[in-house]
Amino acid sequence: MSSYQDQKDNLLSRLNRVEGQICGIKKMIEEDKYCVDVLTQISAVKGALNKVGMTVLESHTKGCVSDTIESKADSDEVIEELMEVIFKFTNK
Amino acid sequence: MSSYQDQKDNLLSRLNRVEGQICGIKKMIEEDKYCVDVLTQISAVKGALNKVGMTVLESHTKGCVSDTIESKADSDEVIEELMEVIFKFTNK
Amino acid sequence: MSSYQDQKDNLLSRLNRVEGQICGIKKMIEEDKYCVDVLTQISAVKGALNKVGMTVLESHTKGCVSDTIESKADSDEVIEELMEVIFKFTNK
Amino acid sequence: MSSYQDQKDNLLSRLNRVEGQICGIKKMIEEDKYCVDVLTQISAVKGALNKVGMTVLESHTKGCVSDTIESKADSDEVIEELMEVIFKFTNK
Repeated sequence: MSSYQDQKDNLLSRLNRVEGQICGIKKMIEEDKYCVDVLTQISAVKGALNKVGMTVLESHTKGCVSDTIESKADSDEVIEELMEVIFKFTNK
Repeated sequence: MSSYQDQKDNLLSRLNRVEGQICGIKKMIEEDKYCVDVLTQISAVKGALNKVGMTVLESHTKGCVSDTIESKADSDEVIEELMEVIFKFTNK
Repeated sequence: MSSYQDQKDNLLSRLNRVEGQICGIKKMIEEDKYCVDVLTQISAVKGALNKVGMTVLESHTKGCVSDTIESKADSDEVIEELMEVIFKFTNK
Repeated sequence: MSSYQDQKDNLLSRLNRVEGQICGIKKMIEEDKYCVDVLTQISAVKGALNKVGMTVLESHTKGCVSDTIESKADSDEVIEELMEVIFKFTNK
């Protein structure tokens, strides 16, 4: 069902780090840290999520998408779904 | 030091929700959920972080930036800092 | 070489419209129009370019990428190139 | 009305360059250049537009926004308008 099996540990450890960053931002806000420093940290989390997303996207394209194309079944559908999710990603 | 005091509860509850979303994404990965669904969730978190960031940015501009401009001190410096952090935000 | 042949007219007419929008923004600046209106127009152009980009990306994936995967040649290379260009796109 | 007067030449010459880049992309498409090269060029234009936008934004904040804050009139309104346009910008 998923294509990122060999990236699972990598993804989970990155997401653990993101969780830690979110926790850190909450602490910054509780301690009234300077707004710009909070914003810089939020940007860093967005950057980290972009990398997680790109890893999943790459696995998905090398896995699910390639398999569908090779089996010559429904490849248009799978590619349109891929484009939609990339578009969502680009606009956030 | 910070300008978001009256938004603190709002910000913290949003960040708690983001933390829950990250936790949910980790679970999805552990359970081998479909790549596109994982990506959709990551986009949702990016959208949520954009909103948190915009709230901090608005408080900062209404607070710190306005105060500096009113006191006619170093306002160029404060505005350049503001632009830098917005630029970082736009490129993530 | 390219995969967007059947989208050529569509792409060129969109880009003509973008050119017209850029021209309009220049005129706004020459006529000292309000900053926020200029910024709104620039955002609109970015949105239009995202759509042009997504059309090229979809053609590329349905064409070049699919062909390479079907022919079972260098598909990893082609997918890595694809990811790189999507990453560039997401960060602008 | 506008705050970017002293940046006018700078902005117009940047936008002329963007116009040239759009023209170049149209030529690439007419000549069936490789999809990824077209996408790389579109990303470059988005980057150039981000810089134009940031210049207008900085002028606007140093000019219109600061003036409104100094005159202690409607500053909330002006800042909310500013946030809205930044949000649009961040999501494109």
